[in-house]
Amino acid sequence: MPTPRLPSKTLPNDDLGLGLKVIPGRGVNKDGTFNVRRRGLPRLRTYELYHRLITMGGFKFLGLLFLGFLLTNVLFAAAYLSIGMEHFARPGGNGFLDRALDAFFFSAQTLTTVGYGHISPQSHLASAVAALESLLGLLSFALATGLLYGRFSRPHAQMRFSKTALVAPYRGITGFMFRFVNRRSNQLIEVEASVSLSFFDPEANARRFVNLGLERNKINLFPTNWTVVHPIDEASPLFGWQDVDLLKAQAEFIVLIKAFDDTFAQTIYQRTSYIAEEVQWGVRFKPMTTFGKDGRLEMDVEQVDEVESA
Amino acid sequence: MPTPRLPSKTLPNDDLGLGLKVIPGRGVNKDGTFNVRRRGLPRLRTYELYHRLITMGGFKFLGLLFLGFLLTNVLFAAAYLSIGMEHFARPGGNGFLDRALDAFFFSAQTLTTVGYGHISPQSHLASAVAALESLLGLLSFALATGLLYGRFSRPHAQMRFSKTALVAPYRGITGFMFRFVNRRSNQLIEVEASVSLSFFDPEANARRFVNLGLERNKINLFPTNWTVVHPIDEASPLFGWQDVDLLKAQAEFIVLIKAFDDTFAQTIYQRTSYIAEEVQWGVRFKPMTTFGKDGRLEMDVEQVDEVESA
Amino acid sequence: MPTPRLPSKTLPNDDLGLGLKVIPGRGVNKDGTFNVRRRGLPRLRTYELYHRLITMGGFKFLGLLFLGFLLTNVLFAAAYLSIGMEHFARPGGNGFLDRALDAFFFSAQTLTTVGYGHISPQSHLASAVAALESLLGLLSFALATGLLYGRFSRPHAQMRFSKTALVAPYRGITGFMFRFVNRRSNQLIEVEASVSLSFFDPEANARRFVNLGLERNKINLFPTNWTVVHPIDEASPLFGWQDVDLLKAQAEFIVLIKAFDDTFAQTIYQRTSYIAEEVQWGVRFKPMTTFGKDGRLEMDVEQVDEVESA
Amino acid sequence: MPTPRLPSKTLPNDDLGLGLKVIPGRGVNKDGTFNVRRRGLPRLRTYELYHRLITMGGFKFLGLLFLGFLLTNVLFAAAYLSIGMEHFARPGGNGFLDRALDAFFFSAQTLTTVGYGHISPQSHLASAVAALESLLGLLSFALATGLLYGRFSRPHAQMRFSKTALVAPYRGITGFMFRFVNRRSNQLIEVEASVSLSFFDPEANARRFVNLGLERNKINLFPTNWTVVHPIDEASPLFGWQDVDLLKAQAEFIVLIKAFDDTFAQTIYQRTSYIAEEVQWGVRFKPMTTFGKDGRLEMDVEQVDEVESA
Repeated sequence: MPTPRLPSKTLPNDDLGLGLKVIPGRGVNKDGTFNVRRRGLPRLRTYELYHRLITMGGFKFLGLLFLGFLLTNVLFAAAYLSIGMEHFARPGGNGFLDRALDAFFFSAQTLTTVGYGHISPQSHLASAVAALESLLGLLSFALATGLLYGRFSRPHAQMRFSKTALVAPYRGITGFMFRFVNRRSNQLIEVEASVSLSFFDPEANARRFVNLGLERNKINLFPTNWTVVHPIDEASPLFGWQDVDLLKAQAEFIVLIKAFDDTFAQTIYQRTSYIAEEVQWGVRFKPMTTFGKDGRLEMDVEQVDEVESA
Repeated sequence: MPTPRLPSKTLPNDDLGLGLKVIPGRGVNKDGTFNVRRRGLPRLRTYELYHRLITMGGFKFLGLLFLGFLLTNVLFAAAYLSIGMEHFARPGGNGFLDRALDAFFFSAQTLTTVGYGHISPQSHLASAVAALESLLGLLSFALATGLLYGRFSRPHAQMRFSKTALVAPYRGITGFMFRFVNRRSNQLIEVEASVSLSFFDPEANARRFVNLGLERNKINLFPTNWTVVHPIDEASPLFGWQDVDLLKAQAEFIVLIKAFDDTFAQTIYQRTSYIAEEVQWGVRFKPMTTFGKDGRLEMDVEQVDEVESA
Repeated sequence: MPTPRLPSKTLPNDDLGLGLKVIPGRGVNKDGTFNVRRRGLPRLRTYELYHRLITMGGFKFLGLLFLGFLLTNVLFAAAYLSIGMEHFARPGGNGFLDRALDAFFFSAQTLTTVGYGHISPQSHLASAVAALESLLGLLSFALATGLLYGRFSRPHAQMRFSKTALVAPYRGITGFMFRFVNRRSNQLIEVEASVSLSFFDPEANARRFVNLGLERNKINLFPTNWTVVHPIDEASPLFGWQDVDLLKAQAEFIVLIKAFDDTFAQTIYQRTSYIAEEVQWGVRFKPMTTFGKDGRLEMDVEQVDEVESA
Repeated sequence: MPTPRLPSKTLPNDDLGLGLKVIPGRGVNKDGTFNVRRRGLPRLRTYELYHRLITMGGFKFLGLLFLGFLLTNVLFAAAYLSIGMEHFARPGGNGFLDRALDAFFFSAQTLTTVGYGHISPQSHLASAVAALESLLGLLSFALATGLLYGRFSRPHAQMRFSKTALVAPYRGITGFMFRFVNRRSNQLIEVEASVSLSFFDPEANARRFVNLGLERNKINLFPTNWTVVHPIDEASPLFGWQDVDLLKAQAEFIVLIKAFDDTFAQTIYQRTSYIAEEVQWGVRFKPMTTFGKDGRLEMDVEQVDEVESA
């Protein structure tokens, strides 16, 4: 087994900020989050609440909205009941359930400002609580509007990376390569890629990081797919490595993609990583583009993973 | 016919990401979209729905809103009818049409939260469905607000390019040139242009891409029009070409414009392309600017296409 | 009068995009707009309407909103009247004025979704028009919300430039200089300045443009004021010029300031210009900063124009 | 005491824009604002009002909203009272308090557009004022929605800096260093740091500014903490200084951090400063990261301040 050919001293800008630690397992998860647990963070504060409401799943968000609506109505219904439903003009019965449900529905009609009026406050106290509730309703609605727009307008990079990276033939030598496509309909331009190799260095008993040179690190337009290639020439730290070397060194390839979303005028980033077990040897990517019956170029996004023997 | 003078090896950063494919016809459409069909994309997901609602035409969008309003009311009217209109206090008649239309209009009054109250729910079940509908109304309205703002605030580059590009006299030699104006009232600054030539190379039996050097690739201010010029000197890959050469090589000039929209603090991009058939020889652009009666500089946007014999 | 010492050939990137035209008067107005009239622009389209509604003055905008509210109500009132006010349950009289005003106020109550219900539609036709109006009300309100937020969140550079520029002593030689402050409370950082000189060149019978080198073109923080200085050394195109030379050459100094607004995470730009008549000779700027009674640094924004004899 | 080893002439780009003034105390406060008082600013204008409403504390903002709601209702109640409550259909009593509170609650029901209708305007004048109020209600609500979203979407850098900076051993020499963590859950990438030293120069009787070279000034990913290090080698202006020298020179280290917030696609900045009294000597930072029971890397944000003797 050849010794990894590394620069004698890792250049400062090659450390990605992950620290020269012995991180067991992968440092960057497939979805681009970091494999780090943070403790001691401040309790829920406004900006964190906003962050969670913006990033949580859509159904969970709607469920929370619905729950909040129910709960607020229950609380105000209790307030109206404790004031006494005789403070309200209403057509309904006087059993507890009738009074409670009338209170609940009056609350709902106030919170949403629908205000039919067949139930209406008749005392000043009841009117005051109802005025408060309608103000709260408006503000909650303003909040919901802001949150919904915030969820919409948040950048959503949806690059689909090949499940495995390859070490495959490339211009007479071999290259480390992976490819990806944009799953969204938005137009991405000025797409940039950077790839770092992280591996365990037994001598230093620590992880080391090296940036890998790429065949090209930027494309202007991105209509189909992009195969990012690190040529394994003599200058490459991977020169002479075999698949077992990658596994032994607990190698991890950390990928950072940057692009400009032309449709929404936003810069977006997406991260992923390939660990040694996710690198295939001796195969190459099958072309993803064909020509349709009308002679137009076609790309099947689902074929991004497909390989053939090299 | 002179042989195209190309760099012996296309530099990596000259490939625009379109792939070195034999793309029949144009690779980039006039409106800047790519002439590629994508298959295998995931079924409609939230972010795609948003994308479509934001980018569709205004009338289609309004039509969809109206249709959604109608449909929601029909569904809730059906719910109220199945509960029974005897659960509602209302002044109207008892024929089916009267009941159905009252249910429909009660639904509309609830969804929009107008809630006159001359029709009002009298049973708890009717009240519960109405409460749900008014909540849905508020959320839909929040959604509509977000969508409308999203449509507004989306960057809209409205550069108007000359319909044809020219090969015209330029400082003693000739140059490949086109021009464009900003049709919007917003102020564009730091406008950048890049132009690539794509053509069919019979030797390689593939398309090749070369960036074309420009007389200047950036202007700071953009008050009138900008004529982008690629000088056809000895260093140009177009040196010695005639119009028939462009046609034979299925040449396509791919144009990417980048600018900063000062009014909305957004970076915007616009793409277009000129194929060989859209290049005129032996003419030059007529000046677009004149002086008004008050001595003030005037530009007629409609004259961007006008040429005169060189 | 010394001949202007210009580079033998104006470098391409020195032309600001204003064209090498004989523009009479100033090319850039004090407020940064261009002194150009554009004709042939397309008729009012959606994005232009939005642009105007966003950039017009606040009172004009509110006036338009109010007018729109009035007009919409007049139109719907006319519709209700033509249906006949006997289609509505209402407490009011039957004279024309009573009917017309009831129609108007019912419309207002529907458009704003306040819907008291003391006037309510009793026929299906009246209900249908009212349903339409309440939908329109919601959408208009969504539009107004979007417009108001768009007006708020638009970047507002509020740099206050000194009314005159100076040619004043600077490190043993003289320098062309002006200064500016930020009138807003937002924090500006990474502030960049660029200054170009435009003047009439009698030989070429055209305007020429040269970028002026600055003592420094970027500051990281901007807590007080910034005096931008172009040193008039031998390399300067202004070397040897007198005040009359500036006037004869119809000189104009075009200023472009770029900054990052830390408070709203936006890049902002502001432009202005100084023509020859706005350049003072033989004076220098008075310091704008003093120390308060508590020893704290103070800056009086109003003193940005103050000069003293050099 | 060794003489500070400074470049013979402060380079222009080392002045941060704070001016070469004798600023007593610190120039930059701990929270990144400038220690400068600005006078002569224009009276409250729209954009300043917006700025204040966006940046004020959450409870203050809600309090203002509530106060505005109360005040508006009091004003409209006064208007309704002065018209006369006999212009309204209402179930309540005729004492002054009853009339005044009915006017107030009718106003609240109109402003929030809840419009129950048990109180309703019966004269045209009352209807006109109510129509105006409901329009005002809608616009205020639109404003509140915009403000709430503006508050949400404003960039919130929440870097937590170590309370003290250290002069500690670093690769055989010593280094000036501090560290920081991100307290938010958002992902920061491309984090950049710059550090300037400001100190009093007795010879010039003025403050001078020098940028300090950093071991590295950018990291791509920021999963844990970053210790920013200025190596005190022979090229450093701090070479040979002792702690008393820092105090005598009234030294201040001005820190500017720039990062890209991946979650919200925003560039964010945060500033802070360390004065001489906030620099510890002879200690070093304790590591902040450990491994959890499951072998996963853990970071305790609260430990950012912890030091141990060097």
